Amino acid sequence: MEIKILGIGMTKFGELWSKSLVDLAEEAAVKAIKDAHLQLASLDAIFVGNMLSGAVTGQEHLGALIAERLNLKIPAMRIEGACASGAMAVYQGIQGIASGRFNRVLIIGVEKMTDLSSAEVNKALMGASAEDEEGVNGLTFASLYALMAKAYLEKYGLKEKDLAEVAVKNHYHASLNPLAQFPFKVTLKQVLESPMVADPLKILDCSPITDGAAALVLSRRQLTVDGGQIPVSIIGSSLVSDTLSLSARKDITEQWATKKAIQEALQMAGIKLEEIDLAEVHDCFTIAEIISLESLGFFKKGTAAKATAKGETRFDGSLPVNTSGGLKACGHPVGATGVKQIIELVLQLRGQAGKRQVKKAKIGLAQNLGGSGSTAVVHILKGENHA
Amino acid sequence: MEIKILGIGMTKFGELWSKSLVDLAEEAAVKAIKDAHLQLASLDAIFVGNMLSGAVTGQEHLGALIAERLNLKIPAMRIEGACASGAMAVYQGIQGIASGRFNRVLIIGVEKMTDLSSAEVNKALMGASAEDEEGVNGLTFASLYALMAKAYLEKYGLKEKDLAEVAVKNHYHASLNPLAQFPFKVTLKQVLESPMVADPLKILDCSPITDGAAALVLSRRQLTVDGGQIPVSIIGSSLVSDTLSLSARKDITEQWATKKAIQEALQMAGIKLEEIDLAEVHDCFTIAEIISLESLGFFKKGTAAKATAKGETRFDGSLPVNTSGGLKACGHPVGATGVKQIIELVLQLRGQAGKRQVKKAKIGLAQNLGGSGSTAVVHILKGENHA
Repeated sequence: MEIKILGIGMTKFGELWSKSLVDLAEEAAVKAIKDAHLQLASLDAIFVGNMLSGAVTGQEHLGALIAERLNLKIPAMRIEGACASGAMAVYQGIQGIASGRFNRVLIIGVEKMTDLSSAEVNKALMGASAEDEEGVNGLTFASLYALMAKAYLEKYGLKEKDLAEVAVKNHYHASLNPLAQFPFKVTLKQVLESPMVADPLKILDCSPITDGAAALVLSRRQLTVDGGQIPVSIIGSSLVSDTLSLSARKDITEQWATKKAIQEALQMAGIKLEEIDLAEVHDCFTIAEIISLESLGFFKKGTAAKATAKGETRFDGSLPVNTSGGLKACGHPVGATGVKQIIELVLQLRGQAGKRQVKKAKIGLAQNLGGSGSTAVVHILKGENHA
Repeated sequence: MEIKILGIGMTKFGELWSKSLVDLAEEAAVKAIKDAHLQLASLDAIFVGNMLSGAVTGQEHLGALIAERLNLKIPAMRIEGACASGAMAVYQGIQGIASGRFNRVLIIGVEKMTDLSSAEVNKALMGASAEDEEGVNGLTFASLYALMAKAYLEKYGLKEKDLAEVAVKNHYHASLNPLAQFPFKVTLKQVLESPMVADPLKILDCSPITDGAAALVLSRRQLTVDGGQIPVSIIGSSLVSDTLSLSARKDITEQWATKKAIQEALQMAGIKLEEIDLAEVHDCFTIAEIISLESLGFFKKGTAAKATAKGETRFDGSLPVNTSGGLKACGHPVGATGVKQIIELVLQLRGQAGKRQVKKAKIGLAQNLGGSGSTAVVHILKGENHA
């Protein structure tokens, strides 16, 4: 079945010290409801994607907490799948509608990360990995992805500057997105000369620690109101699990879960990969965008970095990728990321993406990962904007 | 639609220091699959109910983690709604089937609590409440329920011993349940003379800190295999949110969310309250069982304690309540509790409850709460055992 996206709303992404997690969730939710030309009372349920609230402030039970703030007494659930929590909440919301139980649901992805020190938040993030194997041995997410990057670069005879191209491109996109955490460009030289985090990944290869929220109103039916938005539908939705620990994977230069998820999503949508006009993919590190694009099938293995350098994945290229700025430059409030990816696609498919507008965009794809590729969620969206 | 319960499995509840959270989840899951006469490969998805894993060990992302342990690469999601996480996972699993996406799902409720000190776990549990209002002001869950107990006893002119009757009854039931954490009886005198925790609640009014896991296999269709189990179906399922903070409630001597949830569940099931033969309710404290029973409508306000003293809620009474021993005496591994309640009902409806078997049980109800009544989940089960 098709699920209609009636409204979208997100906060600025960044270090938002003056706002609490619930403030951010409320702000995004109210914007989404307004964008949908609806009232809060029209909603049947709330699905909250969040990973770290318990670790950061001790607050769990976010479903009821956010429902209370919105003055709603409707079913409210928190969904957690590490950095894929946002897209997982969308996936569950779709099932809630498809089951016949709900007509309209609010999806909120939210994360407040900057209240912890960098060391604390890195430790908390390791909860997304096999904590008792990888975390206790001192690995961080940067070092997990550095292992993948080392293996990938060696296998395909590539250099660190090939990865850096992703950062340059995504920062360029972010410079066109006023809600991005880092709305400015960086040069290849700046990326390559930035401090090393986990060899070969430098700080400008890494997505930042971010506060932010993103919300969607999903519906069984299109709303037909004066001034209503250009219709955008979700036509494919899939979620696949792989092993949590990296050591249990056969090949760390590809994402098995992503490969399976894209097959399932394309089948559900009844389209071919070639029909996809643009994509938001999970670039928590530059290497992650490269491997994601190849695992999705957009590029042959070992070729996505060169394609990036040629400008193919720029918003004016043949396959625009991460026009929002991606996790890298738009920011990565982990529970919000998967929802923000879908918001960026909706903006593009409606023709509301401003200076970064992709021309003739009709079908978009979002891919959100949890852990080092342990959970992959893929959504395919279709717009009806023929402008 | 009816959802079939094909298999059930649970671990012993208690202080299980030699087993990890994943060990417990696996044990319960394997038992449930075996009980269903199925193979793990027959499953389409996993829904994990868990509240505290991040706080206790730092491990989040339990969906993929548990799927890896079971050697399954299927969609796996963690659902969190404080102490209602278990029933919330059931509620989501039902939607997954009803949506047409899955045919058979595994629900696992799991919690490992005894790896923290009592003070630490009490702090972590406050994540279920309005942490920045109630937690920071020094309230614990015992003191939140003590506020309700004070108000309730005063309103209805009752005494502490009226509450204590619940503990005596539930310990009696636990003495008949080999998997209970406290499989022994207590006397009214023992309860009343036990150390005060939060006036008027004494330690024997409180549910314990517990490790444990419980699992269900839910299915769209009944399995017809040789030796298959007596069919039990879920015919009603509802979830309602109320305010997280106690101060925002109109009346703390009743549970608004429970009142609404039972109405919705009865409507979905197409039955009347009088048709329910037995119930598992959320007795995190003795007062919680009393208020829950009245909010569900089984007893008029102010009368459930006296009915308990008369034996009406014993397994051989007119409305058996918490034949498992309840949270009070079977134990309360928070994410597992809502699933364990359903397992107890299945045992009773199949006629497999041993020494605590309720006679002629056909319809059972489970009510699971999150926070101080902020999330209420009600399930209604129907058995086909006419023995």
